[in-house]
Amino acid sequence: MIKAGIVGGTGYTGVELLRILSLHNEVEISVVTSRSDDGLRVDALYPSLRGSIDICFSKPELENLSTCDVVFFAVPNGTAMKMTEVLLDKGVKVIDLSADFRITNVAEWSKWYGMEHACPDLINEAVYGLPEINRAKIQQANLIACPGCYPTATQLGFLPLIENNLIDTQHLIADVKSGVSGAGRSAQVSALMSEIGESFKAYAAAGHRHLPEIIQGLSALANKNVGLTFVPHLVPMIRGIHATLYATLINKDAQQLQSLYEQRYADEPFVDVLPAGVHPDTRNVRGSNHCQISVLVPQKSDTVVVLSVIDNLVKGAAGQAVQNMNLMFGFDEKQGLQTMALYP
Amino acid sequence: MIKAGIVGGTGYTGVELLRILSLHNEVEISVVTSRSDDGLRVDALYPSLRGSIDICFSKPELENLSTCDVVFFAVPNGTAMKMTEVLLDKGVKVIDLSADFRITNVAEWSKWYGMEHACPDLINEAVYGLPEINRAKIQQANLIACPGCYPTATQLGFLPLIENNLIDTQHLIADVKSGVSGAGRSAQVSALMSEIGESFKAYAAAGHRHLPEIIQGLSALANKNVGLTFVPHLVPMIRGIHATLYATLINKDAQQLQSLYEQRYADEPFVDVLPAGVHPDTRNVRGSNHCQISVLVPQKSDTVVVLSVIDNLVKGAAGQAVQNMNLMFGFDEKQGLQTMALYP
Amino acid sequence: MIKAGIVGGTGYTGVELLRILSLHNEVEISVVTSRSDDGLRVDALYPSLRGSIDICFSKPELENLSTCDVVFFAVPNGTAMKMTEVLLDKGVKVIDLSADFRITNVAEWSKWYGMEHACPDLINEAVYGLPEINRAKIQQANLIACPGCYPTATQLGFLPLIENNLIDTQHLIADVKSGVSGAGRSAQVSALMSEIGESFKAYAAAGHRHLPEIIQGLSALANKNVGLTFVPHLVPMIRGIHATLYATLINKDAQQLQSLYEQRYADEPFVDVLPAGVHPDTRNVRGSNHCQISVLVPQKSDTVVVLSVIDNLVKGAAGQAVQNMNLMFGFDEKQGLQTMALYP
Amino acid sequence: MIKAGIVGGTGYTGVELLRILSLHNEVEISVVTSRSDDGLRVDALYPSLRGSIDICFSKPELENLSTCDVVFFAVPNGTAMKMTEVLLDKGVKVIDLSADFRITNVAEWSKWYGMEHACPDLINEAVYGLPEINRAKIQQANLIACPGCYPTATQLGFLPLIENNLIDTQHLIADVKSGVSGAGRSAQVSALMSEIGESFKAYAAAGHRHLPEIIQGLSALANKNVGLTFVPHLVPMIRGIHATLYATLINKDAQQLQSLYEQRYADEPFVDVLPAGVHPDTRNVRGSNHCQISVLVPQKSDTVVVLSVIDNLVKGAAGQAVQNMNLMFGFDEKQGLQTMALYP
Repeated sequence: MIKAGIVGGTGYTGVELLRILSLHNEVEISVVTSRSDDGLRVDALYPSLRGSIDICFSKPELENLSTCDVVFFAVPNGTAMKMTEVLLDKGVKVIDLSADFRITNVAEWSKWYGMEHACPDLINEAVYGLPEINRAKIQQANLIACPGCYPTATQLGFLPLIENNLIDTQHLIADVKSGVSGAGRSAQVSALMSEIGESFKAYAAAGHRHLPEIIQGLSALANKNVGLTFVPHLVPMIRGIHATLYATLINKDAQQLQSLYEQRYADEPFVDVLPAGVHPDTRNVRGSNHCQISVLVPQKSDTVVVLSVIDNLVKGAAGQAVQNMNLMFGFDEKQGLQTMALYP
Repeated sequence: MIKAGIVGGTGYTGVELLRILSLHNEVEISVVTSRSDDGLRVDALYPSLRGSIDICFSKPELENLSTCDVVFFAVPNGTAMKMTEVLLDKGVKVIDLSADFRITNVAEWSKWYGMEHACPDLINEAVYGLPEINRAKIQQANLIACPGCYPTATQLGFLPLIENNLIDTQHLIADVKSGVSGAGRSAQVSALMSEIGESFKAYAAAGHRHLPEIIQGLSALANKNVGLTFVPHLVPMIRGIHATLYATLINKDAQQLQSLYEQRYADEPFVDVLPAGVHPDTRNVRGSNHCQISVLVPQKSDTVVVLSVIDNLVKGAAGQAVQNMNLMFGFDEKQGLQTMALYP
Repeated sequence: MIKAGIVGGTGYTGVELLRILSLHNEVEISVVTSRSDDGLRVDALYPSLRGSIDICFSKPELENLSTCDVVFFAVPNGTAMKMTEVLLDKGVKVIDLSADFRITNVAEWSKWYGMEHACPDLINEAVYGLPEINRAKIQQANLIACPGCYPTATQLGFLPLIENNLIDTQHLIADVKSGVSGAGRSAQVSALMSEIGESFKAYAAAGHRHLPEIIQGLSALANKNVGLTFVPHLVPMIRGIHATLYATLINKDAQQLQSLYEQRYADEPFVDVLPAGVHPDTRNVRGSNHCQISVLVPQKSDTVVVLSVIDNLVKGAAGQAVQNMNLMFGFDEKQGLQTMALYP
Repeated sequence: MIKAGIVGGTGYTGVELLRILSLHNEVEISVVTSRSDDGLRVDALYPSLRGSIDICFSKPELENLSTCDVVFFAVPNGTAMKMTEVLLDKGVKVIDLSADFRITNVAEWSKWYGMEHACPDLINEAVYGLPEINRAKIQQANLIACPGCYPTATQLGFLPLIENNLIDTQHLIADVKSGVSGAGRSAQVSALMSEIGESFKAYAAAGHRHLPEIIQGLSALANKNVGLTFVPHLVPMIRGIHATLYATLINKDAQQLQSLYEQRYADEPFVDVLPAGVHPDTRNVRGSNHCQISVLVPQKSDTVVVLSVIDNLVKGAAGQAVQNMNLMFGFDEKQGLQTMALYP
């Protein structure tokens, strides 16, 4: 039984961590911080957790957090980088769900995130927490940079094609759609139901913060800089990401692609290649840590299409964070993550 | 480890039973029937269950079902009553989620359900599966008539008021709202997203099949015939029931009502009385077996208002069925039912 | 051709006024104010109006507004009462969509709205703008207090019963459901799609600001104080109000009720009594100024049920305001209001 | 005043035609057919039309339809081709909203639509009703093949790029998303709210019927066969199409693209190029006949991205049909189509 702390327990990622960790046999949630709700019972803010969690929010102080074995940062960018060094020094493992440690190029990070990095030295110590690529490193890590939601769906979709050098990596296209919970639990007109409901739009098409993260990941796989056009869209639903990925095949063979994907992910507990001809649907991973993927080459062209879905709050955030924790502490990788999608 | 069979595994209640039972430590799902999908893998129809269930649909035959310890009927009305007698004779316990055994007055049942009853003798043997009223009987039962979704939310809401003789039982009002999954997974224009989305309406206001079931239950509590106006409504969402209940107080005392409700449900694992002033929200029980309830007397009037929410597919159907099964087999009543609501 | 000004053009009521007035043959929109968006083109904020309106937001100043023939206040409570007197003095007619002039009892108003009234003398000059009750007075009025959305649906539903003295007015029940656009276009967590979508709840059950307005209106009809329990609910949709009204009949006769309602509203252009047995659906008035109503007495009881639907932004706000304007200026009452509901 | 007939008045395209034509000053709706609802008042099926239309459905018979000046076919594929010849012979103009006359290559049509064509000779007489390309021909036409919804949004988006020979036309990508009303008003499990709500998926990625129509249209613009990957998706909303289009620039210049688009559509009443940097949103054209378009080149790459939105039932079907009718009869092209989008 380890003690876990959550910094930023009032956002959607925080409450999802609470939901998952409450069912985890090896974890006791000992600290949940919130500056604004200090002293309030957690289940007063989140009645869905009544009966499952019995503590109050506390202020985010190093004193309390230091008593934990692992601390999750589920806060906006810029906070984790200020507190991580002290926690690591005290022997606490850190899993950061924000973007503070995702980008290895500090200048690039500052350009996209609009601030100076507080502890650039730690960036290289951080392991990018995508288990399907970095499992061995994660098992040894003390600091995890948990991937973004769009980058998770997109990288898992492109991975087998790039690892096997099958596509033109200079003209990758990722047309990705997200539910609105990705915008977080903060008061903003643009996320009102009256604005989002019954409507669909692209946003940040000229450049989204997840672009450099995806490019960094895919470039590492390709061993060269990739060229990517990434257009995120907002879907009138709460949870789910659907990545539709396009690339030009250098050598095409649709049949092989199906078995290639199946083999690549055969041993992955949370990546599921669907049978040929089946389209993934975000509802089938809603609330679960699974990524479901299809690959096809329509109309015998030389364009390959990959469809990849996750729940942005689970495999795209809190679930993946717990998967990383399981690896770091030697627990069964699936512990706490075995609930199925809620359908319908 | 007991063997469970599900007759009618392709509807929403059936797939929800599969989701819950897959996580149950004491149950092996051995038979899932579907006339139309005989031979098809269950997870081919429901990709949300991939990795969790490894069997195929089979035809609904007594031969297979007789090998089970318990059989759930998750089919339209009229099927369970034809197969139950044989199963009971073979020592199989039966939990019927349809309405076949809910109404003790056979003539009344025939009037509302439009058919003749196939085994009227069994009706009195059936125990109405609302654990908060009938726990002891359920523990001894071989045949359970699982309550309807509207009746569950409505009866749990009115129960403490009627048990304590606090209200005029001749003018009860139940204004109840349901998500569309209650209409089931069958092809019908009235349940299309284009018809239901972004709209709200009452339906069957002149008389809904759940009316006699609620009246029977409340009348038993009151020891006399109650008068009830029940208006069901359709909400543009998938899961959830919200009952707003109104009654005239004979003796009013708002403060006492809060503690009365809290005491009545103090030992109930799945009924949760919210703190005074908090309104329940269907999202907080989405995917969970909980009923959350509030009681208040607005503006110091003599009208009491009760707000009661459940997930129609869980506490209103599959979850309550498993709760009954746990009681019948002596398992922990909460086994398989400890997942929390999916929020947001 | 008259000149119209809109104070508060950036909220949902304001933009709906723009949509309706843009199609009105007798009106030129000459001023649209917004403190925060002063100088911005209106269609830059609202691309749905591109091609239909060619002006910019300006500051809310009496100078500009005085040049109008009519000014609509589509702002939060507390603004209209400060500017109305000067406008009236300059001969400008005022239609207030906020609550500033709705409640004739100033103390009661202050209690519910939490502020002191700036011009109590004007309250009695204001005409409550429900044409189905006050048409003649509206035609003569210079100042209109436009009814709230809940009060419109509720009063139109109860009206024939109370006018004809058919029900016990001490125990009226209004269980009313609203789409989320009623919460307005301001940044608030409680109106986020992630909070509202796929969920249903009651709110303000202990006392909502529209309660005294409804009681005042119904009491005037009844010629005595009525007793009302009013529970508002939030529906996961954008537009629409559905009032489900309950009362105990003093003399019951269902057949007569249908024809009573039909006769009462026979000459009303925007109140439509549905054929017996048909349930109204909010989608059928979405975007239109109509109220659709059904009345029934279920199960031959002595409880009458009335179902009344409107679009909260049209008949519940901007459409009714334009209907009032048409009456005040002697235009055809239906001018600009003839568009049908958008179905599906 | 002309007389219009609608064959297939019970589907979503049919009821949308009724909504639009009811507001059209030059048209009297004289016949609305429905085999299944013969004799029923139109407003009994569609209460949203109460007060606007006063006729009953009749059987689809040539006798009645021949009295019309124009007949719209709003039926599934395969009906219009059987009735058109006789109507044309009687001097009735025909606007077909199905796919019967869209594909000039009969063999290709049969392959995709799975039937033999009943009147191949008429195909070449039909004018493809996209006014932005074929306005002059439409004005002279007696038979219009109204474009599909996906083809409208996609062709209007690609048009300026292809006309000006700016892109590699062998690797066009159209990632297009549609609301569920495109699936029509027929009983089908896949369009249930419980299946569609809160979820997002691609479908028919291997080949959709609109693919040959889009390829035909773009190839005509390019004067050579184009290569297109077209992946349609289903959005959990009722109305709206959002096309996200990708192509590789041969000569790139983002600044010029903006003015190129603005100039190309400067005189088009229903195509609206948004200011640089603004993303279109389907809600801004919901219920209106407008197409809103943005064009951009993200990150100074050589990939151009076009965002194009329409209402699938208006500019993608009924609205475009009326626009065609206006051109055919010499009415103002905007007649009946001036209502704005319903926002929020």
